[in-house]
Amino acid sequence: MASPAKESLITYSQLSDLEKEFDDVDREIIRYQAELTRPLYEKRQKVVDQIPNFWALVLEQAPPEIDGHIHPSDSQVLLTSLTSLWVSRFEIENGGTGNPRSVAIRFEFAPNAYFEDTVLEKKFWYRRSKGGWGGLVSEPVDIKWKPGKDLTGGLLSMVKAVWDEEQAAAAGSNGAAKKGSGELTPKQKALKNKIENTGVGGQSFFAWFGYRGKAVSAEESRITAEEEQQQRQLRATSSSSADQQTKEAAEDEDDDDEDDLEIFPDGEMLALAISDDLWPGALWFFTQAQEEEEDGQSEDDFESEEEGDDEGDDDAPQDGSPGARPAKKRKA
Amino acid sequence: MASPAKESLITYSQLSDLEKEFDDVDREIIRYQAELTRPLYEKRQKVVDQIPNFWALVLEQAPPEIDGHIHPSDSQVLLTSLTSLWVSRFEIENGGTGNPRSVAIRFEFAPNAYFEDTVLEKKFWYRRSKGGWGGLVSEPVDIKWKPGKDLTGGLLSMVKAVWDEEQAAAAGSNGAAKKGSGELTPKQKALKNKIENTGVGGQSFFAWFGYRGKAVSAEESRITAEEEQQQRQLRATSSSSADQQTKEAAEDEDDDDEDDLEIFPDGEMLALAISDDLWPGALWFFTQAQEEEEDGQSEDDFESEEEGDDEGDDDAPQDGSPGARPAKKRKA
Repeated sequence: MASPAKESLITYSQLSDLEKEFDDVDREIIRYQAELTRPLYEKRQKVVDQIPNFWALVLEQAPPEIDGHIHPSDSQVLLTSLTSLWVSRFEIENGGTGNPRSVAIRFEFAPNAYFEDTVLEKKFWYRRSKGGWGGLVSEPVDIKWKPGKDLTGGLLSMVKAVWDEEQAAAAGSNGAAKKGSGELTPKQKALKNKIENTGVGGQSFFAWFGYRGKAVSAEESRITAEEEQQQRQLRATSSSSADQQTKEAAEDEDDDDEDDLEIFPDGEMLALAISDDLWPGALWFFTQAQEEEEDGQSEDDFESEEEGDDEGDDDAPQDGSPGARPAKKRKA
Repeated sequence: MASPAKESLITYSQLSDLEKEFDDVDREIIRYQAELTRPLYEKRQKVVDQIPNFWALVLEQAPPEIDGHIHPSDSQVLLTSLTSLWVSRFEIENGGTGNPRSVAIRFEFAPNAYFEDTVLEKKFWYRRSKGGWGGLVSEPVDIKWKPGKDLTGGLLSMVKAVWDEEQAAAAGSNGAAKKGSGELTPKQKALKNKIENTGVGGQSFFAWFGYRGKAVSAEESRITAEEEQQQRQLRATSSSSADQQTKEAAEDEDDDDEDDLEIFPDGEMLALAISDDLWPGALWFFTQAQEEEEDGQSEDDFESEEEGDDEGDDDAPQDGSPGARPAKKRKA
C-alpha cells in the first residue's frame, strides 16, 4: 500500500465527510419541501376526497415497485374500502426537530369484509447504525382480520407477537434479550419456520405492515450521528487526515439473524416508493389511469355534474392532463 | 354525460390547476436546492479532480438509463480522456430568473485520439408547448472528430447541418420554414434516411449531443406559461369552473415529423439521469465502483499516499463508504 498504482491524495474519510455535507443539505431540502407542500397536500386531499376510489386507482397505476406488491386479493380490499392515504414527515411536524426522512404512512378504510381496523398507520424512522448503515426502520403493525380473511396467513400476527415479546424482554432485562442476540425463542423459531415455508415473493401487500428493518435503536442512531459529527469536526480542524474513526469500521454483525425474522424484505423500498413517488405524483398517476380508460365508461367517473351539458367534454381530458410526468428523481 | 356513473364535483381543470400549484413549489425547491448545493459541488470538484478517472468510473457505475448508452468504444474515449463533468442550472445562475429545470451538462476532455474538442457542453431548456407538453429541448452540438474516428458515423454532423439550415431558413423567412412544416429539404431527407437505416438502438453515447427534442420555441413556451397563469387566475376568481381554455386543447401536430429527424429519442431521459441522479450521487457511484473492485488492485487507486504505512488500510473502504445509496426520488 505504500506505493499505490495511481497516486492520489484523497482519502476515503474525505469523500465520506463530503458526502455527509451533501446529506446535511439534503435533509434541509426535505424539511423545506415538507413545509412548502403541506398546505398543497391538504388542499389536494379536499379535492380527491370527492373522487371515488381515488387512492385505490392511484395505487393500481403506481410504478412496479408498488404495484408489484399488490396482489389481486389486496386489490379487492383496496378498491372496496380504501378511503384515504396520507404521508407525513412526522418527526418535523408541529415544530419537531427530528429527522425529516422519517415518514408515517396512514391508510383509512371504510368498514369492509376483511378487517376491523378503520385506520392503519405505519411509521418509519430514519436511523444510522454504528456500522455506517442508514435507512428506514419500523415496528410491526397488526391488523384485526375477520375470521378466515387474513391475507397474510397469520404471518403478520406472528411478527407482532415476536416484537412484543422482544420489547417485554428488553424492558425486563435492560436490553440484554434483544432481537438477534443468542438463541431464538419458541415464537421467533415458529416465525422463522413460517417465513421459510411461505417464501417472501408472494406476500400480500398487507404483510408490509410487519416490516421491521434493521434493529437500530434511536439511542444507537443518536450516538452514531453525534460521533460522526465529532469526527468530522476533528478532521476539519486537523491538518492530517489520519483516521480517528476505528469505531465507524464496526460491521453490523447481526444482519443474518435479522433477515430470518423479516417478513417483508422490500419494506423500506416500498415505503420510499409510496412517500417519494406515489404521494407527490398522485394526481399524475390518477390522470394516467383516467387517460388509459378514456374510451371506456370510467372517463365520466369524475366529470363535473355541475355543468349539466356536453359542451367541452371532449376536450376535458386534454385540458386537464398534466404536461409530463413529474420528475421522479431529485437529490441535493 | 349528464348523469355520470359516479357522482363527483371535481373537474379536470381543478386537478390541473392543483398540479400546477405543485409544479410552482417544485420549481422553488429546485431553485433552493441549486443555491444550497452549489458550494458543495465546487468543493467536491476540487476533491475529485485529484482522483484519476473519477468521472469515467462514475459513468461506468451509473444506472442502466446512462450505462446502457455507453458502448465499448464510448467507454474507451471516456476512460482515456474525460477529465471533468459539471452540471449547472444555467438559467438561474448569477441572479438569473429563468427556469430552474433547464440544465447544462459540460464535459471536459484531455487531448485524445478521437476528436479535437476539449469541451463539449450540451444545454437543455425546459419548455412548455401549446399542447400541454413540458420537457427539455436542446440544440445539436457538433463534435470535431478526427479522420475515421466519428463514433456516430456522420450522423451528428448531419443533424447539425439540418439544424443550421433550419435556423437560417427561419431567420430569412420569419419562421415560415421551420422544422416539420411542409416538405423535407434534401438535407432533412438524407438525415431521415440515414436514421432509418441506422436504427436508434445502437447509437453511440456521443449521438446524444445531437438530441433536439420537441420543436418548442422560447416564445411559444413563454406564451403558454402566461396563458396558463391567466386561466388559473380566472378560474380561481370565478365560481364556475366552466372552461375558458379551448386553446390548451390544441394538440402538438407535428410529433411524427419531429421524431423522424431525432437521432437520440432518449435524449431527455439521459439528460435527466445525468443531472438528477448521476450528478448528485457521484460520490456514491464512485464508492460503489471501488467496493466492487475491493479485491483487485484498484482498491489502492485513491488511497492516500501521505500516510505511508499500512495501518488502517483494511478498514478504509468501510470507514468511508456511505451508509446507503442516496435517495433517488424526490418530488415536491
